[in-house]
Amino acid sequence: MNEAEITQIQQDDRQYVMHSWAKQAYVRPTVITKAKGIFFWDERDHKCYDMCSQLVYLNVGHRHPKLLEAFKSVGEIPLAAPAFATAPKSQLARKIVKAAPENMAKVFFTNGGADANDHAVKIARMATGRYKIFSRYRSYHGATFGAGNLTGESRRFLVEPGIPGFVKFETPYLYRETLDFESEEAASAFYLNRLHSQILYEGPDQIAAVFLEPVPGSNGVLIPPKGYLEGVRELCSRYGILMICDEVMTGFGRTGKMFAVQHYPFEPDMITFAKGVTSGYSPLGGVILSRDVAEYFDEHIFLTGLTYSGHTVSAQIGCASMDIYQEENLLENARETGGVLAERLKQLKKFRAVGDVRSIGLFAAVELVKDKETKEPLQAYGMDYGKDPSGLMKKFVALLAEKGFYTYSHESSVIIAPPLIITAEQVNEAMNLFETALREFEENVLFPANTLTVK
Amino acid sequence: MNEAEITQIQQDDRQYVMHSWAKQAYVRPTVITKAKGIFFWDERDHKCYDMCSQLVYLNVGHRHPKLLEAFKSVGEIPLAAPAFATAPKSQLARKIVKAAPENMAKVFFTNGGADANDHAVKIARMATGRYKIFSRYRSYHGATFGAGNLTGESRRFLVEPGIPGFVKFETPYLYRETLDFESEEAASAFYLNRLHSQILYEGPDQIAAVFLEPVPGSNGVLIPPKGYLEGVRELCSRYGILMICDEVMTGFGRTGKMFAVQHYPFEPDMITFAKGVTSGYSPLGGVILSRDVAEYFDEHIFLTGLTYSGHTVSAQIGCASMDIYQEENLLENARETGGVLAERLKQLKKFRAVGDVRSIGLFAAVELVKDKETKEPLQAYGMDYGKDPSGLMKKFVALLAEKGFYTYSHESSVIIAPPLIITAEQVNEAMNLFETALREFEENVLFPANTLTVK
Ligand SMILES: Cc1ncc(COP(=O)(O)O)c(C=O)c1O
Ligand SMILES: Cc1ncc(COP(=O)(O)O)c(C=O)c1O
Repeated sequence: MNEAEITQIQQDDRQYVMHSWAKQAYVRPTVITKAKGIFFWDERDHKCYDMCSQLVYLNVGHRHPKLLEAFKSVGEIPLAAPAFATAPKSQLARKIVKAAPENMAKVFFTNGGADANDHAVKIARMATGRYKIFSRYRSYHGATFGAGNLTGESRRFLVEPGIPGFVKFETPYLYRETLDFESEEAASAFYLNRLHSQILYEGPDQIAAVFLEPVPGSNGVLIPPKGYLEGVRELCSRYGILMICDEVMTGFGRTGKMFAVQHYPFEPDMITFAKGVTSGYSPLGGVILSRDVAEYFDEHIFLTGLTYSGHTVSAQIGCASMDIYQEENLLENARETGGVLAERLKQLKKFRAVGDVRSIGLFAAVELVKDKETKEPLQAYGMDYGKDPSGLMKKFVALLAEKGFYTYSHESSVIIAPPLIITAEQVNEAMNLFETALREFEENVLFPANTLTVK
Repeated sequence: MNEAEITQIQQDDRQYVMHSWAKQAYVRPTVITKAKGIFFWDERDHKCYDMCSQLVYLNVGHRHPKLLEAFKSVGEIPLAAPAFATAPKSQLARKIVKAAPENMAKVFFTNGGADANDHAVKIARMATGRYKIFSRYRSYHGATFGAGNLTGESRRFLVEPGIPGFVKFETPYLYRETLDFESEEAASAFYLNRLHSQILYEGPDQIAAVFLEPVPGSNGVLIPPKGYLEGVRELCSRYGILMICDEVMTGFGRTGKMFAVQHYPFEPDMITFAKGVTSGYSPLGGVILSRDVAEYFDEHIFLTGLTYSGHTVSAQIGCASMDIYQEENLLENARETGGVLAERLKQLKKFRAVGDVRSIGLFAAVELVKDKETKEPLQAYGMDYGKDPSGLMKKFVALLAEKGFYTYSHESSVIIAPPLIITAEQVNEAMNLFETALREFEENVLFPANTLTVK
């Protein structure tokens, strides 16, 4: 790409494209001119470690030869509307069910993560005949109206006044818990008891489903305390409530298992997915239904749908992507390099600005604070999207990018979620960049020595 | 494909795939083994005219060489998250804006039609600071919660109790109107007066937007009476309400213009689209924003988004698809062959079972009745999805398919919307099949001579 072409792309972008989560007048979009594996290069030929896999979807990395090959054979299979059976759709559904927890039986395909959640809400309401839907604060489920109402953070406000029957409960967040628990199990018992009460107050036989991200992603990779998820499962089972796990971000190897729930001894009733299923090479999402839920629809109409359900091309790319996970042992690699990452994260704790680090597989967050003792967050709650006058998180993320460590932040957490093909060596290289950036950030921005003196 | 492969596809499909709008126990999915242009062949090697372009998206027809070629070069451009600028996204946005009404300025990309509408609702609420949303009965806008609440037919019920602030008004439907109007203009004045009252009752300064399909598609290609759409525009302008046209089905040449609104002397504030933008070869949808609406977001945060907004591959396929519309003069062809289709539809009126025919470009419906005098519909209102015990519409659609005329129905209307590459000759061939099927249906099912005698 020459300079004129790049300028044209950027001009057209600024003139014709609406950008998400931003004031358009200040959008200065970068162009990726080259990419390979975990790396991309921008228009200044600056090389970046893609440490968030774009938006946590590029699990097999940039320009994977097998997926590019798969696009070449797209023409061989005719496109077909959802009512038809196609080889890629059948095969992908089978592959997904085989890779999912044992109780899973059928797949309903959608286009992305948000609509997967919207349809899952509808499925839960149909299958149970109940209408209340529980989901959690500090969660993100997407931006359509159903997913938006499930969402527990500030991006929900735009879809409020909300849909009747959507109820929120707490996400365990031990780092910011004011109580001191003897053990993770004790914390779980505390949160589960509160959830139990809330279920009773809302009316157990009114509640169709409890939605949760097994490990909330955008909101800072909040690892659940031991026994918590199993406890939610137990409560759901006791009251005939469906437990629906949103694995849009955690699914397809991100945490070192195909689905995050497979780290735990329980099975949800439905799983929603997107991103990793095609490694983002073609838009695809969906809902995996357990045998029990699926069977309900043998004799009851499955009254929802969309034009591209099981899209022929997306399903082809999904099949190829699923094959890569296996052929290249990406789950194993995510666990191994995830171990290296965890080690490096632990070392970050020596930094004054690092309040907490959390990770599972290649899914991690570094939570920054102004003060380690008081745990004052680097950015007050709800100040994303340009609302924080200090712009500290933005500055740090920009500094990371400058060092060649590309990622994004949410609240006071920096997300780290590289492609699952990353090597141990590359994890170390990238984390060296992270440390360099953090050191500079502390010295020049956050805790400059002279500022302290002057005060 | 050999027989064993086909059996395997069908078995896997029945075991692993959830099908829309159906009781799963009765789904017997067909496999398309071969396709080209307006034709496809099923597993019995039965040749079909694809007279609904799958789900009214395959505007350039099956396996278009230029689009298959476009997939081959997919690997050249790195995938990038929405925050980046990419050549295909910039170019496609420019192409769409240039093809849209003069006042249009920017594109926000989504994955399909439903989420385009969800985001359009949010955009309208942000830009106006108001929250009520008007949409019409006898409309279909998609199955996510926002689009589902916009929807005016029975598929809405599953997302009720609905989102606060969504209000319905009537779609002019002259064939079933009990009043006798002197002219179409008089009918428009009548409906507009009612809409005006409803706006006043709901509070004009509470209303963010009026959504409508300029020509409702799924609900039977209901052509608006003369002056109606302009009148809605005038009311919207008077009260600062945004007029949003859902052109998911009508857009991209279906009616003989790039957008259906371009048949009329008015400009909406936003247009939602999907389907034809890529001819369905890759999932893509979006919202086109007028200059005024877009400008609001220069200094206000555009607080919505999704992982695959402006997906690199989908945008590439969209660019190639847009080029085909121009290179092959598909809009002109849709107008010309649409004329041939209109002629053939007129001739259908001689059939006892044909109550009304409606068309614009290659977008048509044949509405069937049990009795031409009383206009008793072939199927009572709200009896789709297996609720009609007579199953008459299903039987007729199956008979059409048997003759090689593949399409679908909704309520008592059969939809006719072939690929825009169809020739006049092919329209005539297909309509001959339609007539043959209709004749048999009348003679053997609907009005068998002996039944009449026996009675
Ligand atoms: C857990 C989770 N659910 C749902 C979504 C929404 O997915 P999409 O952006 O494809 O609509 C996201 C997006 O990041 C997510 O992280
Ligand atoms: C007018 C209209 N709007 C929206 C939709 C929903 O589009 P999708 O099925 O891609 O969600 C449709 C689908 O047929 C439609 O006809």
